[in-house]
Amino acid sequence: MIQQTEITLPGFRRGYHLITSLIEKQLPPLPEQGLLHILVKHTSAGITLNENADPSVRTDFESFINKLIPDGDPVYIHTDEGSDDMPGHLKSSVIGAGITIPITGRRLNLGTWQGIYFCEFRNFGGPRRLVLTIFS
Amino acid sequence: MIQQTEITLPGFRRGYHLITSLIEKQLPPLPEQGLLHILVKHTSAGITLNENADPSVRTDFESFINKLIPDGDPVYIHTDEGSDDMPGHLKSSVIGAGITIPITGRRLNLGTWQGIYFCEFRNFGGPRRLVLTIFS
Amino acid sequence: MIQQTEITLPGFRRGYHLITSLIEKQLPPLPEQGLLHILVKHTSAGITLNENADPSVRTDFESFINKLIPDGDPVYIHTDEGSDDMPGHLKSSVIGAGITIPITGRRLNLGTWQGIYFCEFRNFGGPRRLVLTIFS
Repeated sequence: MIQQTEITLPGFRRGYHLITSLIEKQLPPLPEQGLLHILVKHTSAGITLNENADPSVRTDFESFINKLIPDGDPVYIHTDEGSDDMPGHLKSSVIGAGITIPITGRRLNLGTWQGIYFCEFRNFGGPRRLVLTIFS
Repeated sequence: MIQQTEITLPGFRRGYHLITSLIEKQLPPLPEQGLLHILVKHTSAGITLNENADPSVRTDFESFINKLIPDGDPVYIHTDEGSDDMPGHLKSSVIGAGITIPITGRRLNLGTWQGIYFCEFRNFGGPRRLVLTIFS
Repeated sequence: MIQQTEITLPGFRRGYHLITSLIEKQLPPLPEQGLLHILVKHTSAGITLNENADPSVRTDFESFINKLIPDGDPVYIHTDEGSDDMPGHLKSSVIGAGITIPITGRRLNLGTWQGIYFCEFRNFGGPRRLVLTIFS
């Protein structure tokens, strides 16, 4: 069986945001076994699994990725939409815009320390659309 | 239901190529709801979702990733197959060799600005094999 | 149909390890067509597809990624768990903690040179849990 829904995230500030609970609240009762796929329908945002306990990990993600893929790198020629636009596109493909999570015993089967990060790469990204697909 | 097919891409030049239409033409009539998974069966090429409108984004991807993961870095010991080989392997794992796209209303459910990029990391990669799997 | 199992990998040393055979041995008889999804239930380890023949590729992965995402970068504030912890989290999201592989003709449908790499980013990661989900 397939269950599918689209949700809109509120406009998050630039950075990494733990959205595990927010996602869980949008899901129907989960099957005994299956998979959840999440797609971010944007090219300057991302989604990934990472550490869910210490907010300093999310701060370090933002600091480090900005160093790795800097705003306003002189190599960019796609600059019309601002200095945070092209790095946003690059980050979206390096981190990824989709994840798949197993469902086991009617719950998302993540590790103890794993949470879902929504990654906003623009300074003012605004609301963002996600597609949630459950396979069972 | 599962539908699966393998296709061969023509030899693309090194860089990032928008292949959304090419992929859509290879697909059977799509189900009302489902998922499409695409695997690139190679270790020096990749596939990702990104901006589908302005070709300068694809140019910047090539420029920036070559700066991030340079050809001929002296740290590489796997050098027998040329200076573009080991960076091709690294890029393939950083960008990824597979993507999953939701299907909704008999269409790929991508964002307005999202397209499928095929990423050729070799100077002369030649034809490339992809596996397309539709779940419904 | 969905078949799901959890396995525990032995403690691997820091680096990239070819685990294709190890995974195949843990799978039930495979369906004619389908998909295998693998999730690493940890935030400082990863999984990816890459070159399965020459061990020097795995050595170069370790050397290069350590240069790209260095231990003990002064930008990190999440440092309580050691200088290899925060870079481990970053690498996990750059490489990814999950992969999906098509199944065709009762076998994993990978390219000739593709193997499954388990990526241990900690100095002493210990045993690691993986969820294997087969869709058919």
